[in-house]
Amino acid sequence: MNNFSFCTPTEFVFGRNTETRCGELCRKYGASKVLLVYGGGSAVKSGLLARVEDSLRRAGVASVALGGIQPNPTDPKVYEGIALARAEGADMLLAVGGGSVIDTAKAIAAGVLYDGDFWDFFAQKAVVEKALKVGVVLTIPAAGSEGSGNSVITKLDGLHKISLRTPSALRPVFAVMNPELTYTLPPFQTACGIADMMAHIMERYFSNTTGVEVTDRLCEGLLKAIIGQARIVMQMPDDYDARANLMWSGTLAHNGLCGVGRDEDWSSHFMEHEISAVYNVAHGAGLAVIFPAWLTYMAEHHVDKLYQFAVRVWDIPESDDRKTAALRAVRKLKEFFTSLGLPVDFKGLGIEQPDIDLLVNKLHENKGERVGAYLPLDRTRSRRIYELAL
Amino acid sequence: MNNFSFCTPTEFVFGRNTETRCGELCRKYGASKVLLVYGGGSAVKSGLLARVEDSLRRAGVASVALGGIQPNPTDPKVYEGIALARAEGADMLLAVGGGSVIDTAKAIAAGVLYDGDFWDFFAQKAVVEKALKVGVVLTIPAAGSEGSGNSVITKLDGLHKISLRTPSALRPVFAVMNPELTYTLPPFQTACGIADMMAHIMERYFSNTTGVEVTDRLCEGLLKAIIGQARIVMQMPDDYDARANLMWSGTLAHNGLCGVGRDEDWSSHFMEHEISAVYNVAHGAGLAVIFPAWLTYMAEHHVDKLYQFAVRVWDIPESDDRKTAALRAVRKLKEFFTSLGLPVDFKGLGIEQPDIDLLVNKLHENKGERVGAYLPLDRTRSRRIYELAL
Repeated sequence: MNNFSFCTPTEFVFGRNTETRCGELCRKYGASKVLLVYGGGSAVKSGLLARVEDSLRRAGVASVALGGIQPNPTDPKVYEGIALARAEGADMLLAVGGGSVIDTAKAIAAGVLYDGDFWDFFAQKAVVEKALKVGVVLTIPAAGSEGSGNSVITKLDGLHKISLRTPSALRPVFAVMNPELTYTLPPFQTACGIADMMAHIMERYFSNTTGVEVTDRLCEGLLKAIIGQARIVMQMPDDYDARANLMWSGTLAHNGLCGVGRDEDWSSHFMEHEISAVYNVAHGAGLAVIFPAWLTYMAEHHVDKLYQFAVRVWDIPESDDRKTAALRAVRKLKEFFTSLGLPVDFKGLGIEQPDIDLLVNKLHENKGERVGAYLPLDRTRSRRIYELAL
Repeated sequence: MNNFSFCTPTEFVFGRNTETRCGELCRKYGASKVLLVYGGGSAVKSGLLARVEDSLRRAGVASVALGGIQPNPTDPKVYEGIALARAEGADMLLAVGGGSVIDTAKAIAAGVLYDGDFWDFFAQKAVVEKALKVGVVLTIPAAGSEGSGNSVITKLDGLHKISLRTPSALRPVFAVMNPELTYTLPPFQTACGIADMMAHIMERYFSNTTGVEVTDRLCEGLLKAIIGQARIVMQMPDDYDARANLMWSGTLAHNGLCGVGRDEDWSSHFMEHEISAVYNVAHGAGLAVIFPAWLTYMAEHHVDKLYQFAVRVWDIPESDDRKTAALRAVRKLKEFFTSLGLPVDFKGLGIEQPDIDLLVNKLHENKGERVGAYLPLDRTRSRRIYELAL
């Protein structure tokens, strides 16, 4: 086990009707005027935004709104938000939505207090030392951004989709999580969220660091829980407990708990970022395509941890033929994704002839010549994995 | 799943040599003079206390020491600490030790800023609204106090052993955790710690709240990890990874993660508190006696969750005869405790003829006529469980 630091100070307020408490929470964390960030029309149409604004009003917290954040959020909205927050004197961000909205709010929060270009943080030219506080009302369990210090933004110029990871500066101070808000998610979006949270666990699980049994068991338990609850939710979208379990899983998958004390991989995420940046597909759908391809490659070239994954998560019987066991687990994972209505290859994503040269070039341009830690990928390997997803 | 709030702001600094960072951490959290609380001679003899004092000195943080905290800590030391902290103007507590030392430091931290008698908090006559900050250098993984807001103190007058639970006021701001510091723990103390952390998980696991699959899986995974790592540590006391996994398990067992969204039980802990208050046995040893007795009673009277415990934690084959499966799991748990050198009945604790009348009376006097939530215990039931431990 490696040395580690772990600190997750976000206050999670979880359960029915909790969105009515966001005004009180903003005040608790010192807000006098919040920049309310949200996405498309569903937060408006469902009445959620009105309930949030009402809660703020009752708590005596002023607000100004920035809507229209799109999936795979891009830098122009961040610049717009920074300008608006400064002009209006907002002293806190309140994100109402899923990962794209939260990530945009985080980037704005860092940018408002920074003299230079906020993209400096993503381009690793500057480190986030201070930021406005961010609160969250979560509506899509997937990205885990409500409990993480991370933000993923795409720079439109060049389609660079970059993940910024901070230990604490961008962790939300609170996250309000009402599972009922997720009942009306389209099935495909629910499924994409499930693939995303599973990927967040697996990126950490596939590690060469030994002696991390506790974290392994937590990862395996979470994966088993997600698989079981996902099956319920796809049949009964308004099953409160199943929705609640998935929502909480999404947070635990990405707040750091599943990665303490070990090297993490993240190559599947990086490979997917290139796909969604170029083809603008849903991140979770891209992961459902790339992760099985990555696992298939690893079954051949570095099976170690995959065998444990097969036995403990997918109940594959123990066997001396570790590769076959691993491949059976990959098949089960693909069947599971398919049962959720997710694609498991480029065709399923609607991309008949992906430009693999472009994807490989962008991957290594953005992430260097060795990507990931479990079995670092050079251009030959990443190309082979993209090809396995055809 | 029930609504819940969850916030664990403690900064965990985990790994080799981390105790050399406690000065820097105290300064980060604003200390100018710390009251250094420790137990018996081992922290002195091992040189740990000197390393901690050196780290404080290098960080420019003054200190004054209060040693001699005993297991099952009592109120006189708390009064002594409060007086010393006030006289010396200490503005932070630094606990170097295990649960008893940390719990004493927490009680002092609350008492220093309170005009009345600190016992008011334990007697539920007052609520902790402010307290000095507490930092921890953990040397015994067991109580989980390094990551919890709780403190257990025994009032010598009447031997009332009372647990105070606060949502946040008494959570340590940081906990330094170096697994190497636990290599020299006597085997019996290591074993007691293992029983304690397992009990912290089981008190939360045995719940009637349904729809908590994620938390169930985390509990089950943690228990499986502890059982496996415990076997290694008892054979190889200086196996770094096994020590590290146990140490981190002790924290996760009790920081709230294993209980979110459900009713918790705690009757075994309350029953044990009466045993250790009256007979001054080690808390973990008392739990190794009481928990199997409680489980045996529940196999007969409320088997539901025990059956899942049997199948998922102890790999008992699924069966329609849930009671028999549950009793097999209890037998395995007892065999496991025995293999660690722990007692599993009063005789093993060295108590030939426990005064069960006294224990039952004190239990219900301190905790009311219905103790616990899984199957609330009246005097008939608690008596029967104490008898099952004979």
